[in-house]
Amino acid sequence: MEERIVVKISELRTFVIDVLVNTGLSREDAEITADVLITADRRNIESHGVARLKRYVDGIKSGIIIPDTRLSIIKETPVSLVIDGNGGMGQPIAYNTMKMCIEKAKKGFMCFAAVRNSNHYGIAGYYTMMALKEKMIGLSMTNSAPLVVPTLGKNAMIGTNPISIGFPSKNEKPFLLDMATSTVPRGKLEVYSRKGQSIPDSWACDEFGNPSTDATHVLENVVKRKGGGLLPLGGGIELTGGHKGYGLSAVVDILSGILSSGALGLDVYGKRGAPAEVCHFLGAINPEAFMGLEEIQENLDSYIQMLKNSEKAAGQNRIYVAGEKEYEAEEKNKATVSLQDKVFITLNDIGKEYDLKLQESQKE
Amino acid sequence: MEERIVVKISELRTFVIDVLVNTGLSREDAEITADVLITADRRNIESHGVARLKRYVDGIKSGIIIPDTRLSIIKETPVSLVIDGNGGMGQPIAYNTMKMCIEKAKKGFMCFAAVRNSNHYGIAGYYTMMALKEKMIGLSMTNSAPLVVPTLGKNAMIGTNPISIGFPSKNEKPFLLDMATSTVPRGKLEVYSRKGQSIPDSWACDEFGNPSTDATHVLENVVKRKGGGLLPLGGGIELTGGHKGYGLSAVVDILSGILSSGALGLDVYGKRGAPAEVCHFLGAINPEAFMGLEEIQENLDSYIQMLKNSEKAAGQNRIYVAGEKEYEAEEKNKATVSLQDKVFITLNDIGKEYDLKLQESQKE
Repeated sequence: MEERIVVKISELRTFVIDVLVNTGLSREDAEITADVLITADRRNIESHGVARLKRYVDGIKSGIIIPDTRLSIIKETPVSLVIDGNGGMGQPIAYNTMKMCIEKAKKGFMCFAAVRNSNHYGIAGYYTMMALKEKMIGLSMTNSAPLVVPTLGKNAMIGTNPISIGFPSKNEKPFLLDMATSTVPRGKLEVYSRKGQSIPDSWACDEFGNPSTDATHVLENVVKRKGGGLLPLGGGIELTGGHKGYGLSAVVDILSGILSSGALGLDVYGKRGAPAEVCHFLGAINPEAFMGLEEIQENLDSYIQMLKNSEKAAGQNRIYVAGEKEYEAEEKNKATVSLQDKVFITLNDIGKEYDLKLQESQKE
Repeated sequence: MEERIVVKISELRTFVIDVLVNTGLSREDAEITADVLITADRRNIESHGVARLKRYVDGIKSGIIIPDTRLSIIKETPVSLVIDGNGGMGQPIAYNTMKMCIEKAKKGFMCFAAVRNSNHYGIAGYYTMMALKEKMIGLSMTNSAPLVVPTLGKNAMIGTNPISIGFPSKNEKPFLLDMATSTVPRGKLEVYSRKGQSIPDSWACDEFGNPSTDATHVLENVVKRKGGGLLPLGGGIELTGGHKGYGLSAVVDILSGILSSGALGLDVYGKRGAPAEVCHFLGAINPEAFMGLEEIQENLDSYIQMLKNSEKAAGQNRIYVAGEKEYEAEEKNKATVSLQDKVFITLNDIGKEYDLKLQESQKE
């Protein structure tokens, strides 16, 4: 059984900020990045939490992320922005872009931004939640390293390209969708591979482009660039709708990378030791553009209740709406959060270089 | 084997317009509706073509569609509209709303419209294509009659709620996604039921909410309102990503029905013999809001070529991008289109009431 280590969120935050400042980030950018990572852990999205810190530190060391650059505004209209991240850290680029979108949407009713030359930005939903906190509709998506095979193809050409969209509610939790457009992320294959379990045939395909149930084989192929990879939502064939997931993931590439004239498909993380050129698409919509905040919040509450109160499948006692499980986890993990022991050890390994130590805490 | 009857498109158009004018539509609205239906047939999306004419005529007769009403603008900002369709025919409501969006996007860079109190509007992609013809990015979605079961539920609560989005290209065909957020539409179950074939377990669930491979059983349950129905894209369980398709279909409901304070979920087609209260969400984005038309078109061409030129799965010789098959069909079906014989017969049955006849033509 996997061991888990409880840490205080305040201490984890200080630790992550201190590490990032030591790698060359400004304190402000380090604080933003730490908040994005820790929010993921609090929401039980561990794959995108502080477990990623090592990749960011390594990315800064190897030149994939430039720690001390600032974003540039390439183009601006009353309702849109094109941003160049200049190879910087993804979280502060996306955070500062979303802040501009929200400010512009206050006056102009909405604002969408296409961002190029950024890096991995953590959970897509974080930026959507920034809009939700301002009682706006939020939108966030990003392209990513090529891991997903197009329908009828056999090579990984597109990223797991997540889509997040959120709407403000009144008494219910906000509606917050945050989903990869692949059936599952790579991390799920790693879990099944470790356990030696076979995977559903809609998750991944082999080097011939045929659906595979062997996670270990698929991961080996991916590492050795032999072909195959993850499958789009809906699986590897048109019969089960795989072309729809493929289409959605292309939409994310187009909005993020084509509207900004940034990198797409194979060109994301295309050059070793150079900035990853990740692209995002972010937006905020003022509810006053439509029926207004009050009415929209009430409509959403009723809709959520309609869905949740509907009859449950045999053996089930609860229907969820998007984001609900994560909001509940976030509330639960207010003061402390538990980390996998291997993540705790890795964090302290990173810390050693800078004389920083993360302590184990008592469970609340 | 199913028999097919070839008809001239010019004659089919005149026939459909004449039928609709006889049911009480203005000539202008009839022309719009006929073009939406015939475009679907030309693009090989027969389920949304002239085969639907009977349902529209019956809908007008029974009070679900009010043929002689006009839409009202409920709210307007420089970049948004809220429209009330006042129970009218879906196609002219969506067409006229999209025209307004395109005009507003010429000055204001973008415009999105939430529409309430409309009816079935045909293929979502038609309105996206209106924007593409003006070299804009188009967006079109609609809610629909409850047929889809939420993840962990057992009753159909939401529609097949399609999403369409399109981007202008230069030499390649435009990218045009047009997808139901369920794995398949109801019509697919009907085809398998007639053939007595079992269906993949990601298509539909039984009255207990369990994935079913028996199309006939599922359809009987739907007709008798016994529970069960279609499954969201990704299937009936979280393991295969069904909660993602469920989330996407809720997003369509929210954008269409919540932003407009219209009907949602069970309330769409909720009252017998009364307007169906279908809601749409439509939008046009001017490429000048981002890197501009020329650059975006060229970026899209390169991206499409990158995807299409990538290696094919074993036994495949072609990778498609969204909309490509349909554009090719539309070009092929320029002068004539073939209809299922039962559709041809039904059309002439409708025509009899108004002394109208549709002739069989020679294949080109």
